[in-house]
Amino acid sequence: MERIPVAIIAATGSVGQRFVQLLDGHPWFEVVALTGSDGRVGQSYAETHWVLTDPMPEYARNLPVVPSTPEAANAPIVFSALPSKYATEIEANFARAGVGVFTNAGAYRRDPTVPILVPEVNAEQLALLPTQRKEKGWPGFIITNPNCTSMGMTVALKALDDAFGVRRAFSVSLQAISGAGYPGVASLDILDNVIPFIDGEEEKVEWEPRKMIGKVVDGTLQLANFQLSVHTNRVAVSDGHTVCLSVEFDREPSPAEAVEVLADYQAPESARDLPFTPRPVIFVHPDQDRPQPRLDRMTGKGMTTVVGRVRPDPLFHLKMVVLSHNTIRGAAGGSIYNAEVCVREGLIK
Amino acid sequence: MERIPVAIIAATGSVGQRFVQLLDGHPWFEVVALTGSDGRVGQSYAETHWVLTDPMPEYARNLPVVPSTPEAANAPIVFSALPSKYATEIEANFARAGVGVFTNAGAYRRDPTVPILVPEVNAEQLALLPTQRKEKGWPGFIITNPNCTSMGMTVALKALDDAFGVRRAFSVSLQAISGAGYPGVASLDILDNVIPFIDGEEEKVEWEPRKMIGKVVDGTLQLANFQLSVHTNRVAVSDGHTVCLSVEFDREPSPAEAVEVLADYQAPESARDLPFTPRPVIFVHPDQDRPQPRLDRMTGKGMTTVVGRVRPDPLFHLKMVVLSHNTIRGAAGGSIYNAEVCVREGLIK
Amino acid sequence: MERIPVAIIAATGSVGQRFVQLLDGHPWFEVVALTGSDGRVGQSYAETHWVLTDPMPEYARNLPVVPSTPEAANAPIVFSALPSKYATEIEANFARAGVGVFTNAGAYRRDPTVPILVPEVNAEQLALLPTQRKEKGWPGFIITNPNCTSMGMTVALKALDDAFGVRRAFSVSLQAISGAGYPGVASLDILDNVIPFIDGEEEKVEWEPRKMIGKVVDGTLQLANFQLSVHTNRVAVSDGHTVCLSVEFDREPSPAEAVEVLADYQAPESARDLPFTPRPVIFVHPDQDRPQPRLDRMTGKGMTTVVGRVRPDPLFHLKMVVLSHNTIRGAAGGSIYNAEVCVREGLIK
Amino acid sequence: MERIPVAIIAATGSVGQRFVQLLDGHPWFEVVALTGSDGRVGQSYAETHWVLTDPMPEYARNLPVVPSTPEAANAPIVFSALPSKYATEIEANFARAGVGVFTNAGAYRRDPTVPILVPEVNAEQLALLPTQRKEKGWPGFIITNPNCTSMGMTVALKALDDAFGVRRAFSVSLQAISGAGYPGVASLDILDNVIPFIDGEEEKVEWEPRKMIGKVVDGTLQLANFQLSVHTNRVAVSDGHTVCLSVEFDREPSPAEAVEVLADYQAPESARDLPFTPRPVIFVHPDQDRPQPRLDRMTGKGMTTVVGRVRPDPLFHLKMVVLSHNTIRGAAGGSIYNAEVCVREGLIK
Repeated sequence: MERIPVAIIAATGSVGQRFVQLLDGHPWFEVVALTGSDGRVGQSYAETHWVLTDPMPEYARNLPVVPSTPEAANAPIVFSALPSKYATEIEANFARAGVGVFTNAGAYRRDPTVPILVPEVNAEQLALLPTQRKEKGWPGFIITNPNCTSMGMTVALKALDDAFGVRRAFSVSLQAISGAGYPGVASLDILDNVIPFIDGEEEKVEWEPRKMIGKVVDGTLQLANFQLSVHTNRVAVSDGHTVCLSVEFDREPSPAEAVEVLADYQAPESARDLPFTPRPVIFVHPDQDRPQPRLDRMTGKGMTTVVGRVRPDPLFHLKMVVLSHNTIRGAAGGSIYNAEVCVREGLIK
Repeated sequence: MERIPVAIIAATGSVGQRFVQLLDGHPWFEVVALTGSDGRVGQSYAETHWVLTDPMPEYARNLPVVPSTPEAANAPIVFSALPSKYATEIEANFARAGVGVFTNAGAYRRDPTVPILVPEVNAEQLALLPTQRKEKGWPGFIITNPNCTSMGMTVALKALDDAFGVRRAFSVSLQAISGAGYPGVASLDILDNVIPFIDGEEEKVEWEPRKMIGKVVDGTLQLANFQLSVHTNRVAVSDGHTVCLSVEFDREPSPAEAVEVLADYQAPESARDLPFTPRPVIFVHPDQDRPQPRLDRMTGKGMTTVVGRVRPDPLFHLKMVVLSHNTIRGAAGGSIYNAEVCVREGLIK
Repeated sequence: MERIPVAIIAATGSVGQRFVQLLDGHPWFEVVALTGSDGRVGQSYAETHWVLTDPMPEYARNLPVVPSTPEAANAPIVFSALPSKYATEIEANFARAGVGVFTNAGAYRRDPTVPILVPEVNAEQLALLPTQRKEKGWPGFIITNPNCTSMGMTVALKALDDAFGVRRAFSVSLQAISGAGYPGVASLDILDNVIPFIDGEEEKVEWEPRKMIGKVVDGTLQLANFQLSVHTNRVAVSDGHTVCLSVEFDREPSPAEAVEVLADYQAPESARDLPFTPRPVIFVHPDQDRPQPRLDRMTGKGMTTVVGRVRPDPLFHLKMVVLSHNTIRGAAGGSIYNAEVCVREGLIK
Repeated sequence: MERIPVAIIAATGSVGQRFVQLLDGHPWFEVVALTGSDGRVGQSYAETHWVLTDPMPEYARNLPVVPSTPEAANAPIVFSALPSKYATEIEANFARAGVGVFTNAGAYRRDPTVPILVPEVNAEQLALLPTQRKEKGWPGFIITNPNCTSMGMTVALKALDDAFGVRRAFSVSLQAISGAGYPGVASLDILDNVIPFIDGEEEKVEWEPRKMIGKVVDGTLQLANFQLSVHTNRVAVSDGHTVCLSVEFDREPSPAEAVEVLADYQAPESARDLPFTPRPVIFVHPDQDRPQPRLDRMTGKGMTTVVGRVRPDPLFHLKMVVLSHNTIRGAAGGSIYNAEVCVREGLIK
């Protein structure tokens, strides 16, 4: 089978590098172009200041950095690691040129016609694409990832919502420094410290899960009905966002019932058995002191949501801890999985 | 003025060392004895493996380690850093011998006749002592500290409860490694990691604030009426416990009203102007990314509760962040402050 | 091909766990027994407090913990993760029973008949085994690993010694916490800190490389002639020992000559193309700020020695930085490679 | 006594903030002006993003940020925290205007007429000032600090050189992140990591101690005769540079002799009993695992050089470990001490 050409937009930053890494040897996709800002165009990608722990893949070393335009990228699928402030315009250029854009940027997450896609949660929100095309007049389309902190908790909430109806939830995150990009958090700010503030993050995490778990009715997205309260913190962890979650349900489950529902949760048919499908979708860790980011973030190659400590909550119904790899599941890996679903669904020309 | 002789029980461990340090040069108290376990008795205290960042005070270097008995300690006030499993018996021995015991151990916190004393919160719970003496038949008495995580949030909740009536609160802690003693947390367990579990901690923190903010009616303590849900986490911070708090009130305050109440909160008359009185009792940090443990834990010489980020909560009424120094305010410094109140109240012979 | 049965002695500790992990799916060896201390015997290995970041392999979960005796282990090859104080006697028991013992313990490193084997450096020191068998009267044998800090620098020194003759070297280590086992270093001792002392370590690292690079003449080992001065430090790194090295040679090379020699260094014939042969033996990193433990420790699946910053030294001839994964190359992986060489050389019955 | 007006040049950066902090309440100096870059001029200093763990002193909150000119600063003494690239010109402007400039910048360290002043080492190098004034035609003068890594080791080497004659030394540093300023080192670069490279640092540290321990003969500075080889590393420590040192002498001392010489070392007469004189100049820590940055950096209010582990070296004569607080002793505190010496010596009008 011939692989589909794909390009990575803004490939030189830390999220861009994750795309470069995770697409190395992908069975369906072949990276044919890496784009960068004007100052980088014309350089070899090998000159990039590489910040990941595995070495730069060979294929990427030999590619030049090209401009972030549909012509230069020349691929029916692009993965975007653009900062949000540039994403609005550049990603629209690609969609207008007929390209399927899978982005990690937040620019379009609030757009009611753009799905925040997490295949195991809401593959059916691809039903928004006809609306998007019609409203925007784009032959291509844009699909976004959620914020990396929304990611894991939304997978857990979806499984629980299906079974018991989520009414409201408190959520406190302990987020990894890689979520702030590179150079991101200064070492003097985080060594022997916690920063109990991440600009704009709480607003995102209180809203995005409602969109993701919402329903598309007649081409229009309706937010899920539950309410969230979110505190976000930065801690001295390299990768892996930990979330403490207290949840109230329509119908109170026992911890054992919730564990069973979480452990048995399956992605919708269209999102199963793809190269980046998490295996399992949710892993419920049996130990009382897990999940922990250093030990559990790579579960399912970094794509699995890990849940632990499901126990009664004195105010709501259940407490639990949710862990998700923020730069794999919550960024590049998530976008790749999204693209795989779209290919299977015949949405890529 | 002649200083009152005091002894430190279990002076060689990490909390004992904090007592040794904080009592150096205390205007009212003179350390006359340091006790230790059988294996240490007879050694010079100078041989202790000292783990604090300031050097061992001179006065302590020259004291011998003596047994943990009232005879060897020979002082009307003792500060106890005993592990809970030894505290039940040994602390009772001291109280039975007429000594005022100020302890950091958890052994007696659940005893309805033993106050969990935080002077700026509940100095009036000293009214329990006559009941304690009568029921136990002790000429002396025992007064405990709260758990170090309960400490800061209880001070904040008390100020808010007085003004607006606390109904319920969610609380998620990010706790320093010093809270686990020495050697305590293995470095391999916390470097680049979070441990979302501390054995027995959540139960304590869900209950102790209700006792502390309770009322003594006719010599009997009545728990405060609010309910708490607590998640506890260990993070790579040396000192200073950070707590994310969402609170629901009887009467909803604006963030500005809550800030005013917190900033203006005063200790009861009997707890003011003592050597270890926190100055201020509560500091409300104006910056949006504070408090942070590394930057704010030493506020008020480590005795002040620091609050920040008071803001609306979508589910309850207000969110905020509370920081308290766990080994000063939440351990040794707290006990010393307790003893000062008792001296002023004439409870020490 | 049928796999050779092997046992892991002291399989429940942190080094034992690395053996369990690295032998999972080994093409030649099949783990048939896991031994532990008396208190663990009879338990399932699944009950072990697992400290590695990858999950416990399935094969191990189903094995019982058996006593550390040749009868219970019942395998011609054993990998020993025993603490040195137990190793002297227990490892001799195995050798006496005809078993080939590959050990990470230091007990026999000073024994002139026991090779400290690093195959790419001194596979020919297997010539000591006839002497060992004769002197000890053992039908089996013992082969040790070096200290984990000696490991990487010895590989680099060997390559350079062959080409230019090493005369003397200064070496300062920055060692990972995993080198102290589990629980090992207390977190309070290493957060925001350096410990410039590791008990007994400097003596080992000043001597072992001389034995490893020594020659076997008529069945007797002659130490290499160079002299070393070593400072050892513990730093807040999980895995990977970094060594700063200044070397004086018989014949001064340019940095470029040294780089070429290092990069071209090959293991002796008998140590090539084995499952655990490092690929490459030495990687010379081209960047000016490398090697770094977090980025480079997994080079060659953790078996490769990474060298960087080869540059002139104002006192000796060359300065450089050497990195080696202390629990893979410097412990379990090293022993497995040693066993592979012995199988190929026909030393296992 | 009236205090001398002083200004801090580039007061808003991390070194500038240390000056602001350490000059709070200084008995001789009163800060009358804080300068900053053009973008900051006119703002209140209270708007500075403060990065130190103690709060911003009150006096500074009320000062405006003024331009870095002699007119705006209007003080006979200025402390400069300028980056080196701006220091060359701006510091000369001040000296030309008759001001005594005490700088942390490296711009003039190589100038043969500018002393790298460490009062306890080389107060007599003030004898260079007449030469400086003559050659430059400045009514004022410039005096620099050494690089923060040179600092502690030079104090130790000076004491040893006086007694035994230093011939050569190997030095490997483990440097704190605060040495790189703010934001400085990215947290992703140093968490669970070591960076074995600091740009330009090794060259400085190999040369500066020779200048500092040199002699002024007829107004000309002669470098000390010894040779140094230096490796520099960045580690995950907030403050405090640790240096492993191996030293060869003209006359070999025993470790005990060296300890005695170090512990007894006194500053020259003119540098004693000043407000910032380190007390003691050198502290020789008796424990085998010290000095450690977290435990020992604040010795003598951060001004003392702490030495430990003095022991025989197999290649040279002695090994030891030296610790110095890089932002107090090695930066702002050092400059203040320098200014105090100049005031006492009558060099300030």
